Amino acid sequence: MARTDFTTPRLCVDDDLALDRPVPLAPEAANYLQNVLRLKPGARVLLFNGRDGEFAASLSGEKKRAALTPIKKLREQETPPPLDYLFAPLKHARLDYMAQKAVEMGARSLRPVLTRRTQVARLNLERLEANAVEACEQCGVIWRPEIHVPQSLDAALAAWPQDRLLVFCDEDAPLANPLDALRAAPDAAGVGLLIGPEGGFDEAERASFTRMPNVLRLSLGPRILRADTAAVAALALLQARFGDWR
Amino acid sequence: MARTDFTTPRLCVDDDLALDRPVPLAPEAANYLQNVLRLKPGARVLLFNGRDGEFAASLSGEKKRAALTPIKKLREQETPPPLDYLFAPLKHARLDYMAQKAVEMGARSLRPVLTRRTQVARLNLERLEANAVEACEQCGVIWRPEIHVPQSLDAALAAWPQDRLLVFCDEDAPLANPLDALRAAPDAAGVGLLIGPEGGFDEAERASFTRMPNVLRLSLGPRILRADTAAVAALALLQARFGDWR
Repeated sequence: MARTDFTTPRLCVDDDLALDRPVPLAPEAANYLQNVLRLKPGARVLLFNGRDGEFAASLSGEKKRAALTPIKKLREQETPPPLDYLFAPLKHARLDYMAQKAVEMGARSLRPVLTRRTQVARLNLERLEANAVEACEQCGVIWRPEIHVPQSLDAALAAWPQDRLLVFCDEDAPLANPLDALRAAPDAAGVGLLIGPEGGFDEAERASFTRMPNVLRLSLGPRILRADTAAVAALALLQARFGDWR
Repeated sequence: MARTDFTTPRLCVDDDLALDRPVPLAPEAANYLQNVLRLKPGARVLLFNGRDGEFAASLSGEKKRAALTPIKKLREQETPPPLDYLFAPLKHARLDYMAQKAVEMGARSLRPVLTRRTQVARLNLERLEANAVEACEQCGVIWRPEIHVPQSLDAALAAWPQDRLLVFCDEDAPLANPLDALRAAPDAAGVGLLIGPEGGFDEAERASFTRMPNVLRLSLGPRILRADTAAVAALALLQARFGDWR
């Protein structure tokens, strides 16, 4: 398994990582490790950067001059499954939650799309990134998901590669077994999951989906799911069919 | 679909429901409808009680003497899919969230089980019930999930009916396609999903699962999922295989 050791702190950094090369700690990380977790010099911390794999590192120095030195390579770098997550942004805490969950479920990118019924016009991308990184740290994700700037739905659809399947969850879709639908879908160079806003897609948006060459309208049962729940549920099905749960 | 009308408030009550028979409002409900939502007499509210189906009702009276009178039956009562949710309770907000999500995903019962690594010993069952009811109201669930008192894991396993499949998610399970595992599982009189605490099951617990006649150890991919995420992910797979998403 990717991570069974929950007691060792795990940190994502921007620096290159190599054995015996100390990584100076940013002030927030130094404060977290030394003051919040009260780690002492010699303490073990897991380090990754999304490029060089994962290392066990040893804490040295004190206060603002603290550093982490990789002492053992634990995992080689992995590439994420080709699973993109397109979503109508929600407000505040629900957006934080949705970003964390999508990353935890293994999405390689977070792509905000502005649909006609999307209630959120401005997006704090730094906060989105921070939520994504935190989810990586906590759940043993070894890559760093791409964070995209918001696009209109029209622009996102126009830019979508033809060899990638786009799956959209639609509360008005006729009830149909999602496993059968996914089994029947052809293998693709990648898969995008599109989750609309609370309130769903409008008719013009639905029509634009049906004009796409490689699209699957997925039913998630007879009840309405909240957007963040639908995201986790659909990503589970997609990971099992196309991703790295196989 | 069960619910596309998100603008009409939806309320779960204890009273029997029948056409033209007014239901007096409890003080909290009266306050919510009249003061928070600022509804006026004649306003439309959806009503269900888990037994008599769902009705459109009309608000009448004022202040503490307000009532809702069913004026049209919208849905017949449905029975839930035979999907029970057994879980090691988490703390506070995460437990609220987990209960809401399980109900939203269609679990017919919430059964807290105390495993050896469970950190939470006491459980506020009224709060669990309130979270479950709120999820029913918001997501168009028409039944009321059973809320069980906490049991030890041993007691829960001993009481588990032999004709029901018990699925447990295990972060130490070898990576294997969950769809294949579920497809191979025989049809059962019902399915229970058991999600352990953060930290997982211990060896003695795992051994006790393997002695059960009808059990499936499910892998949810190569990363560790938080307990509430694993619950939604696994319930999606189970709904698609055994439940009412087919």
